[in-house]
Amino acid sequence: MSKAIFYHAGCPVCVDAEQMVLDYLDKSKITPEVVHLGTDQNRIEEAEKVGVKSVPALVIGENVYHINLGASLADVKG
Amino acid sequence: MSKAIFYHAGCPVCVDAEQMVLDYLDKSKITPEVVHLGTDQNRIEEAEKVGVKSVPALVIGENVYHINLGASLADVKG
Repeated sequence: MSKAIFYHAGCPVCVDAEQMVLDYLDKSKITPEVVHLGTDQNRIEEAEKVGVKSVPALVIGENVYHINLGASLADVKG
Repeated sequence: MSKAIFYHAGCPVCVDAEQMVLDYLDKSKITPEVVHLGTDQNRIEEAEKVGVKSVPALVIGENVYHINLGASLADVKG
């Protein structure tokens, strides 16, 4: 079972993409986790280490999929 | 049953994202279709109409998810 981590920051683009992730990813193959980097800022470093450049982003295994390029991590850090 | 259309243009970023789409989307909820706009240029207009700005992009219903911003449609038109 792979793990999928969806990083977001609460922006409208993020929420829209989150719905897609939660609705359509195959839960028999992956366990999704949703991380809000705006409220959970101590996970930003972890996100950067795996290659997340912007949110919303979906990380499955070692692959990072940036979706719709909503907000850069620099913006989330504020 | 919703339909998911994955538009791409054969770029490495596209192929990588395609694998995610085909591997992890829940086929009990959506039927995926893969469209290569580089070879199937007569579908570029359809892609633009639904809001695709770059490839790879995943369209589910009326929602467009641009992934990793690989190549703009202007580049695909050549």
